[in-house]
Amino acid sequence: MRTAAIVGTGRIGRSIGTALRARGVATYLLDIDAEAVRVAQELGAGTAQPPPRPVDIAVLAVPPEQVARVLAVQQKQGLARCYTDTAGVKVRPQRQIEASGCDLTSLVGGHPLVTDDHDGPPAARAELFEGRPWVLTPTGLTSDAALNASLELVSLCGAVPVLADHAAHDRTMALVSHTPRLIATLLASRLRHADNATLRLAGQGVRDMTRAAGGNPALWTDILTANAQPVAEVLDALAADISSAATILRRRADHASGPSEDGEVAGERPGEALARLLELGIKGRNRLPSGT
Amino acid sequence: MRTAAIVGTGRIGRSIGTALRARGVATYLLDIDAEAVRVAQELGAGTAQPPPRPVDIAVLAVPPEQVARVLAVQQKQGLARCYTDTAGVKVRPQRQIEASGCDLTSLVGGHPLVTDDHDGPPAARAELFEGRPWVLTPTGLTSDAALNASLELVSLCGAVPVLADHAAHDRTMALVSHTPRLIATLLASRLRHADNATLRLAGQGVRDMTRAAGGNPALWTDILTANAQPVAEVLDALAADISSAATILRRRADHASGPSEDGEVAGERPGEALARLLELGIKGRNRLPSGT
Repeated sequence: MRTAAIVGTGRIGRSIGTALRARGVATYLLDIDAEAVRVAQELGAGTAQPPPRPVDIAVLAVPPEQVARVLAVQQKQGLARCYTDTAGVKVRPQRQIEASGCDLTSLVGGHPLVTDDHDGPPAARAELFEGRPWVLTPTGLTSDAALNASLELVSLCGAVPVLADHAAHDRTMALVSHTPRLIATLLASRLRHADNATLRLAGQGVRDMTRAAGGNPALWTDILTANAQPVAEVLDALAADISSAATILRRRADHASGPSEDGEVAGERPGEALARLLELGIKGRNRLPSGT
Repeated sequence: MRTAAIVGTGRIGRSIGTALRARGVATYLLDIDAEAVRVAQELGAGTAQPPPRPVDIAVLAVPPEQVARVLAVQQKQGLARCYTDTAGVKVRPQRQIEASGCDLTSLVGGHPLVTDDHDGPPAARAELFEGRPWVLTPTGLTSDAALNASLELVSLCGAVPVLADHAAHDRTMALVSHTPRLIATLLASRLRHADNATLRLAGQGVRDMTRAAGGNPALWTDILTANAQPVAEVLDALAADISSAATILRRRADHASGPSEDGEVAGERPGEALARLLELGIKGRNRLPSGT
């Protein structure tokens, strides 16, 4: 890989550009916002000069809703031999890409998973991808050349490639990212009605659990919208779990105020049901791989 | 304050003992487990020798379910002039105390809020309470002498006293501690069904949000049982919020696949409803006081 184009010079695009330049790849920056390109060039993410066409790979670092349109435009202009994107949702952009008649052989969907950096500076950071998973979603139509170019891109950025299909990726992200993020928002929303004396008692636990609520609403509206159905399914399952937990607690409250002679439910006592619930949480938590 | 008795030499009891000794108070350790007393003495939390009766204050550092029984026993034996406890739930122990005919004038309910220390060593740490809130729940029957002794205890431990009534305390803890902790468990439980490829994509966000699920199940079964009704109420509200969010996402998914001519709901579009939800989360999050 000798040449790359970065289309979209936000944090992810700039960071990929910086990583590629550090590995000797000539990197060309494109953005509808000329000022954004100028800033990215100053940050060392690549050059604002027009790219030689075709470059070896074009990375479309644009929001999920814009991937299909930008791909159609750039393929028409012959920007690159291969294309990949960085959208955090894959099914819907893929459908839009298929509907817009793009060439599918030169395309590999991509999603670099970087640490959410709510408070950090928006600088370009080559090490953003170091050791992190980077999902690639080739289809049956993807050419070997396109897949190999994407794998090389991931490798040059120091990330670990993870092959997945679009739907599995989106269900996974709903479970481990999008739903937890929305739950952080809903937990945080409940705090609006607390009085100040209440909030003095808030500790590190609720701080940890609502941190993600601080993210950019426009960005997250896009992501949640693009992955609406899988997230709604996890939310439904979680709402059912929460209602079950509330039922167990109510039975426990009744039980504690004195079990009736014949009103007792046969089998498990509420205290045992609660303990079992907490044990399941520990089992789930322990499945997370250690480290970041 | 010259003399204090610590009844229950777990982490909280030992840490209070250590803090009091550092301020020159003669501290006597009691526990049904003689070995626990010996260990606490070795850790510097006080002496295993029998206390002179009455001591100035007795701190009942026992689980919520045992506060009433232990108070009745110790008051009968004339252990102290004043009594306080450290239970994380206040309404139910108070009811049990009233039912068991204890002297209420010498009693002030207490709850030191310490940072959850899931992974830390169970050592006695005098600084555990430094700058942290310590709730006191005097009633109309509490004597000035008892309240002042409790305030002095809090001050000697370096904590910040927060006066509250029992019910307000329990509602507050349900909102800022017990419910978030249970949500961490339920989120973590959902991960049990994820495949390993999925879990490789889990990042810091879901790690933060499930950290509390690692806590001691026996301890948390006690706490959640003791505060069952207020927690169930917050869970119900949250389950309703989650179902609303799922409905908004489903409308958004339908909307995105092409709005019908006359099937459109008048007023707010789903994308706007979602953005509004996320903004409410930021507002709630911003209400948390800064720092720990």
